[in-house]
Amino acid sequence: MSNPNAAMLVIGDEILSGRTRDANMHHLAARLTAHGITLAEARVVGDDKAAIVAAVRALSDEYDHLFTSGGIGPTHDDITADCVAEAMGATIRIRDDARSILEAHYQRAGTELNEARLRMARVPEGAVLIDNPISAAPGFTIGNVHVMAGVPAIFEAMVASVLPTLTGGAPLLSQSLRIERGEGDIAGPLGDLAERYGDLSFGSYPFQKDGIFGAQVVVRGTDARRIDAAMVELTKLLPE
Amino acid sequence: MSNPNAAMLVIGDEILSGRTRDANMHHLAARLTAHGITLAEARVVGDDKAAIVAAVRALSDEYDHLFTSGGIGPTHDDITADCVAEAMGATIRIRDDARSILEAHYQRAGTELNEARLRMARVPEGAVLIDNPISAAPGFTIGNVHVMAGVPAIFEAMVASVLPTLTGGAPLLSQSLRIERGEGDIAGPLGDLAERYGDLSFGSYPFQKDGIFGAQVVVRGTDARRIDAAMVELTKLLPE
Repeated sequence: MSNPNAAMLVIGDEILSGRTRDANMHHLAARLTAHGITLAEARVVGDDKAAIVAAVRALSDEYDHLFTSGGIGPTHDDITADCVAEAMGATIRIRDDARSILEAHYQRAGTELNEARLRMARVPEGAVLIDNPISAAPGFTIGNVHVMAGVPAIFEAMVASVLPTLTGGAPLLSQSLRIERGEGDIAGPLGDLAERYGDLSFGSYPFQKDGIFGAQVVVRGTDARRIDAAMVELTKLLPE
Repeated sequence: MSNPNAAMLVIGDEILSGRTRDANMHHLAARLTAHGITLAEARVVGDDKAAIVAAVRALSDEYDHLFTSGGIGPTHDDITADCVAEAMGATIRIRDDARSILEAHYQRAGTELNEARLRMARVPEGAVLIDNPISAAPGFTIGNVHVMAGVPAIFEAMVASVLPTLTGGAPLLSQSLRIERGEGDIAGPLGDLAERYGDLSFGSYPFQKDGIFGAQVVVRGTDARRIDAAMVELTKLLPE
C-alpha cells in the first residue's frame, strides 16, 4: 500500500492532566482513513515550547503530513503558531490577511479586537490560511504541517476545509467479525490466515462486557474482493 | 516542582484507524495527577515492531516511568511483550510463574490452555508481574516500563495494582473559573498574572456550546494557599 501517511500532534496540558478527554484524535483518524491517508502515529505534548518544537520537527520530517490540534487561541499558553514557525524555520508576525479576517469578525460581533485577540493573526510567513467558519481565527498550513484549533467543533470544521486539498490514496476498507469466545480460541489459525493474506491486515480486539469475553476481528485492506475472500475463510475458523 | 514524570504509549492499529476511541490515556492521566506523577507526553503507535521498539526506547530513556497499553493478548498482532523485551535488551520466553497463573485460570474456566494462550505467559527475564484480577493474563514491569492490557477494565485494574508501588510527589491541585465571554477579554491580564505566579501554571481552555463562547481558566500547583491567592486575583480580572 502506498497511501500517504500522517501523524497527529495534540497540544495541551489539559489532556495530560486528565482534565479534558481528547476528542480530535478519534475524529481525525476516521476522516483520514476514509480519505486514504494512513494515520501512523499520534502524540500528545503539553504547552511547552521545547516539547512542541521537537515534536513538530520529528513528525513533519518522518511523515507526509502532520496535523496539529490546540494552542492557537489568544492566551499566554497558546504558543503553537510560534513553535511551528520555529520548527519550520519561518519568521512569524501579525499578517494583514489574518488581521482582516479578525477585524471583520469582531466588528460584526461588536467586540474589541484587542492585543490578545490580535495574537491570533500571528501566522508564519509563507503559510496558507485554513478557514474557520465558526470563530474566524484561522488555522494555517506551512509545508506539510496543518495547524488547527483544539475546540472540537472548530477542529472538525478545519479538517473539513483542509482534507479535500490533500491527495489521498485508496480508502482503507474493513470488515469485522464478532466472536463471543476468548481470542485464544482462534488465535492460532488467525495468525496463519494473516500470513497467507499478507496484503491485508488482521486485527483482533478483545472486549469484556456484561460478563462476556470476546473479540472483534477486523480485516483491513484496499481490495474489497480480497477482504471478502478472507472473511469467508475467517468464518470457517470459528470453533463450533 | 520535582514530581516524577511519565509518558504513556498506546499500542494498536485500531486507535489510529479511527475504529476504536482510546479511553486509557484519559484514565491514566487522572490517576497519575492524583498520585503526584506528571504525565508529560503520550504517544499512539500501531502494531508495528519497529515503531513500538523505537518509542519504548525513546520514552523510557527520557522519562521516569513509561506506561504502555495494548498488545499483550494471544493473537499474532499482540507483539508488545516481545518489542519491550527487545527495547530493554532483555531475553523473553514463557515463564513458569506466568504459566502457572494461566493454568489455574483456564482450569477453573474449563478452557484449554492452547499454544496461542500460552503466548500470554511470554514475559521478559527480570520483569515483575502485574496482577490481572479480571482475565488472569498478567502485565509486567521491567525497569521503568509498565506493560498493561488495552481492554479498559483490565488496564484500569492493572493501574490500580501498579500505582501504589510507585513513589509519587505532591498531588497536583487545581481550581478553575468558568468565564462566559471570549478568552480574548481576559487574555492580557491573565498572562500578566501567570508571570507573577511563576510557581503555578495557568491554562485557558476555550469552549463553544449551545452558541455560548467561553473558557475554563484552570490554575494548577501543589500549594493550595498560593492557588487560593491567584484565584482571588483572577476573579478581579473578569470584565464587568
